[in-house]
Amino acid sequence: MTPDMREIAKQSKAAAAVVATLSTDAKNACLLDLADRIIRSNGAVCAANERDLAAARDAGLGDAKLRRLALTETAIRQMADGLRQVASLPDPVGQVTRNYTVPSGLTVRKVRCPIGVILMIYEARPNVTVDAFALCFKAGNACILKGGREAIHSNELLARLAHESLQAKRVPTGALALLTTSDRDEIRELLTYEEYIDLVIPRGGASLIHFVHEHSRIPTVQHFHGVCHVYVDEAADLGKALEICVTAKTSAPATCNAAECILIHENVAQTLVQRLVERFVRDGVEVRGDETVCSLAAGNANPAAEDDWGREFLDLIVAVRVVPDLDAAVAHIHRYGSNHTDAIITEDGIVAGRFLNRVQSSCTLVNASTRFNDGFQLGLGAEIGISTSKIHAYGPMGLEELTAQRYLVRGTGQTR
Amino acid sequence: MTPDMREIAKQSKAAAAVVATLSTDAKNACLLDLADRIIRSNGAVCAANERDLAAARDAGLGDAKLRRLALTETAIRQMADGLRQVASLPDPVGQVTRNYTVPSGLTVRKVRCPIGVILMIYEARPNVTVDAFALCFKAGNACILKGGREAIHSNELLARLAHESLQAKRVPTGALALLTTSDRDEIRELLTYEEYIDLVIPRGGASLIHFVHEHSRIPTVQHFHGVCHVYVDEAADLGKALEICVTAKTSAPATCNAAECILIHENVAQTLVQRLVERFVRDGVEVRGDETVCSLAAGNANPAAEDDWGREFLDLIVAVRVVPDLDAAVAHIHRYGSNHTDAIITEDGIVAGRFLNRVQSSCTLVNASTRFNDGFQLGLGAEIGISTSKIHAYGPMGLEELTAQRYLVRGTGQTR
Repeated sequence: MTPDMREIAKQSKAAAAVVATLSTDAKNACLLDLADRIIRSNGAVCAANERDLAAARDAGLGDAKLRRLALTETAIRQMADGLRQVASLPDPVGQVTRNYTVPSGLTVRKVRCPIGVILMIYEARPNVTVDAFALCFKAGNACILKGGREAIHSNELLARLAHESLQAKRVPTGALALLTTSDRDEIRELLTYEEYIDLVIPRGGASLIHFVHEHSRIPTVQHFHGVCHVYVDEAADLGKALEICVTAKTSAPATCNAAECILIHENVAQTLVQRLVERFVRDGVEVRGDETVCSLAAGNANPAAEDDWGREFLDLIVAVRVVPDLDAAVAHIHRYGSNHTDAIITEDGIVAGRFLNRVQSSCTLVNASTRFNDGFQLGLGAEIGISTSKIHAYGPMGLEELTAQRYLVRGTGQTR
Repeated sequence: MTPDMREIAKQSKAAAAVVATLSTDAKNACLLDLADRIIRSNGAVCAANERDLAAARDAGLGDAKLRRLALTETAIRQMADGLRQVASLPDPVGQVTRNYTVPSGLTVRKVRCPIGVILMIYEARPNVTVDAFALCFKAGNACILKGGREAIHSNELLARLAHESLQAKRVPTGALALLTTSDRDEIRELLTYEEYIDLVIPRGGASLIHFVHEHSRIPTVQHFHGVCHVYVDEAADLGKALEICVTAKTSAPATCNAAECILIHENVAQTLVQRLVERFVRDGVEVRGDETVCSLAAGNANPAAEDDWGREFLDLIVAVRVVPDLDAAVAHIHRYGSNHTDAIITEDGIVAGRFLNRVQSSCTLVNASTRFNDGFQLGLGAEIGISTSKIHAYGPMGLEELTAQRYLVRGTGQTR
């Protein structure tokens, strides 16, 4: 029997009204209970994940996708740690962000409030199921989660554990609805229920984002792809440049904040390109270079095709191009970037300032890896993803970004 | 010749890149020039507006609509004052909202940046044309404005004056595009240009909001209608209650923050209803009451129809209902309200607190008129409208709400 989408949305709305009023302690108790439950159910989680992995291997999924799907013992421990960490973060609901008196004598407080029901549509990373639930819930929202169908067994088990925790703490299980359908007609239907769902967060590739764009009547904050650039300026410390470029690619190649393209100022190309390409190759990275790079790399680089610029490889592949100056680097990023994360390596403060002003990505860095664009690394405590839309939130979305703000005003009989 | 929508959107995008980099002084110079120009062109503005008014009278538009369309000498002076006021407000672009260091040693700044191109679709209030341009422009954005066709001559003249000011200050006139088309196919086309337009703000009634909802692929912050309630609790100071209820309706009945419905606790109905209804009638307001109100009002109230609850009259009409308690008042507001503005009149702090928690409008007030939900009254300096969406901005949208925020990060070679 197919679940009725309207019924799910309605139940989520009803649950949201309850979740919005839960005390901080009640919310934390659920999160901590779930952390313990996941650790206790370690074996069951691994078994469910193994079913997904086996199916994915049969279907011929690539290594990067298999890595994202896998729940290793470490990944399971990290999910539990993530829950405990969200429990330890301050509750955003009710936080007073402004408090002032206006000339009419009214006292005005701007306070954070839950958004309501959040529908998140993402791909095959089962850990997102737990992270997204934890953040939405702590921010006082109910969530409807639609993960990738490749992760279905893992997701079902994790959602069941979450429901057990909610039930144990007498919170309506409607606080988390897991959609197991992959029927696009049903998802499309859900995207029209603006009376029940307040926000849609699609997190994934172009086809998913376009589908949601096309059909959603609900406000959307998209977590689109990260085509992240590192520009090595002529005034770069080349030692720093080498380490940053290599780790930004290799430390987690399947993540959205991994570097996909290195741009190198022509005045340092002679010195840097060969060393950099050798190091990439040594670390298992395929280099796709422009003509200059290929000629300097002594056979270690393959020629880049036009569509390798602006491409999110999500794998051990990197594009490398030599550019004449800062303007050309910025123009490349404007043309091929995705407003996600871009970095410059330079010791010249003026050039760094120009780069920061002209590259308007959600996070623009000087002398640091693109992989620092991450809610935890930037001090938000945790994140549900990285928004590449400028509306509502731009960059990592943590607890605060999962709330709205409203005005509470007290008067003494002011008329108008 | 019909203008090409894609061309307009493209030119706006190009202009936005320039406006984003203008100095505060350059932006203020344009705004002040426009203020002077509007005052100098007073006669021409009145003449253009008179053409719109004559056509509107011929078309049989109601009094409330004619009032919103009219540019009196006072209204013209207010537009110019509004421009000077926006010029005097702090520039939001570049404002640092957070500045901190994280354990990895990175220094992180969160700064406000322009959104880009803002498309605003609104109804027949020509003053909105000037207010919206001023706020979008000061916040570093280009805007595309589509006003009501009833205001077309007024809007064309005001846009021409703005273009003269931009030209005088050597700013691309693409900073303001006025759409004179009312062809829904063309607007629909524009709503698909997500590559050029960053935000759509529809401000108006149900049909406009639904049209934009249905067709926009661009993020939207809606300024929907205000079905504002005043609840008079049993612990109200009835003198305050009377003055607040009456002024909240009569001081500007055609605005979205005017009260449309008064809810009265049954324990004070005997004392209050007759006096309140008499006062409404004396001030020219038609009262539509429930049975109790009609019987207490001694012939001064008409029976309310079911669709008078939740209706935005925007006119000298008010619905009045007696309710048994706070719960019933809150339930009525949940059912019929529009998340815009609601107020309680009570001297009981506990009841006031409950009302503030349970009614989640963008602005919830205690012992003050709903008409204080206004950017100027709440200390934002000015507003482009009042958002009834929770995403991005909820309540009055001022300069800050017309910006995004992004992260600028400086390191010393941090790898990851």
